[in-house]
Amino acid sequence: MRFVRYEHEGLARHGLVESDASGTDWVVELRGGLFDPPEPSGWRQPLASTRLLPPVIPGTFYAAGVNYMGHRRTHGEAPGAPALPNAQHIGYRANNALIGHGDDIVVPADSSGKVQFEGELVVVIGKRARNVPQERAMACVFGYTIGNDVSERVWQKADRTFWRGKNSDTFKPMGPWIDTQARVEDMDTVVRLNGREVSRFRTADMVFGIAETIAAITRYITLVPGDVIWMGTDDPTLDMVPGDVVEVELTGLGVLRNRVVAESVR
Amino acid sequence: MRFVRYEHEGLARHGLVESDASGTDWVVELRGGLFDPPEPSGWRQPLASTRLLPPVIPGTFYAAGVNYMGHRRTHGEAPGAPALPNAQHIGYRANNALIGHGDDIVVPADSSGKVQFEGELVVVIGKRARNVPQERAMACVFGYTIGNDVSERVWQKADRTFWRGKNSDTFKPMGPWIDTQARVEDMDTVVRLNGREVSRFRTADMVFGIAETIAAITRYITLVPGDVIWMGTDDPTLDMVPGDVVEVELTGLGVLRNRVVAESVR
Repeated sequence: MRFVRYEHEGLARHGLVESDASGTDWVVELRGGLFDPPEPSGWRQPLASTRLLPPVIPGTFYAAGVNYMGHRRTHGEAPGAPALPNAQHIGYRANNALIGHGDDIVVPADSSGKVQFEGELVVVIGKRARNVPQERAMACVFGYTIGNDVSERVWQKADRTFWRGKNSDTFKPMGPWIDTQARVEDMDTVVRLNGREVSRFRTADMVFGIAETIAAITRYITLVPGDVIWMGTDDPTLDMVPGDVVEVELTGLGVLRNRVVAESVR
Repeated sequence: MRFVRYEHEGLARHGLVESDASGTDWVVELRGGLFDPPEPSGWRQPLASTRLLPPVIPGTFYAAGVNYMGHRRTHGEAPGAPALPNAQHIGYRANNALIGHGDDIVVPADSSGKVQFEGELVVVIGKRARNVPQERAMACVFGYTIGNDVSERVWQKADRTFWRGKNSDTFKPMGPWIDTQARVEDMDTVVRLNGREVSRFRTADMVFGIAETIAAITRYITLVPGDVIWMGTDDPTLDMVPGDVVEVELTGLGVLRNRVVAESVR
């Protein structure tokens, strides 16, 4: 099943994506929340004319950093960098930065312009989890979605934290939906800029897999339904400029598409 | 007014703290949420027998780091540390770590034992805010509460992020209430270990004040009602061991009290 969160008359609602016999995709409205048993309200609307929102707003927003070998070589081995904790690198992102499929990525007016995409597989947690061994970790997963970990590289390097380099408003597109049946083992992550493929890597090439990451986090931390873990990206990550359209596809899961615009001068 | 969030028959509820003529404090139950107009339900219960929860669960949990001069000398001037962004240091903490007044701080079994308190003033945002100039920033504040930014110093130094050093479960006590009328200009932050005062510093000695911090954040980021900003601590920050009771008082605002316990061996 594919769960969307969308805007209808100013409110956020949850729905299921279903196709009819003619091949048209519909959003079937649900009465409850994402983790309630899915109960259609009887209302549906065409997916194509629906404004999608981030499919979930996490309680806590985790990011597994430098988790592919190429990206690790580029960004993960600064001289004097301290050892990785349990060989995992767990970070955070901020909910203010979340936008949905189809929303605009806004480049702040005082940015250097070095704003890059990072296509990522996103794990959505479905069960409360603490001290979960790797063998049972996948049972905590509700489904998967797609993220673009937009990064302003000058701020990322210059600041002590990623607060504006990775968390400025609109820097975290996520969507279009949560797929509960996607098979992530053999997926490709594909990034396209203005329709041209610029990056492709295999999900199977993660340094630390989903189960290992959940096990590492839950040694110290309780994961709860709705938490998300962004699983990291691989090189190349390239500059985006206002006017560009960036797509992150996870093959078999979906395509997350956003346009890049400049902040309007106030 | 003093707003609490508390547990009643397994559910989180919002209430107001009120004293009667005999000096007894009561929790007056409210029908709505924290940002609804306060409407008592008619039910009240003694504060003393109420299990308090963190008074708000933020959408995003901000922390202004190294924001007092003493603490800055100790923790903020590592050799080669990059420049501060706009002279502010904005970080994040994670909701999983939040506990309320009276809950236990649990030291993980594999901790070095170097677990320290950091007493902090907490700002609770009440209005949606973006691009707010310093002069109007205080109008975005709903009220104030108290935080203890518990820190495992070995992990804080060794790991690439603060994920377990500052965000292990129970490491972020917050409460007891949100005070909407507290005057924070002249407060002292006082920390007591087992009843003995071990730290005292003036809120007025922050390097960057509340209005400056809100202005800096909202240049890039939208603050929304319920977001919290922890304003940093000053030295000394000392070790706590299982059995200790730690109190953080903000004079005129309240006292946040928690016991320290060891993780039970599984």
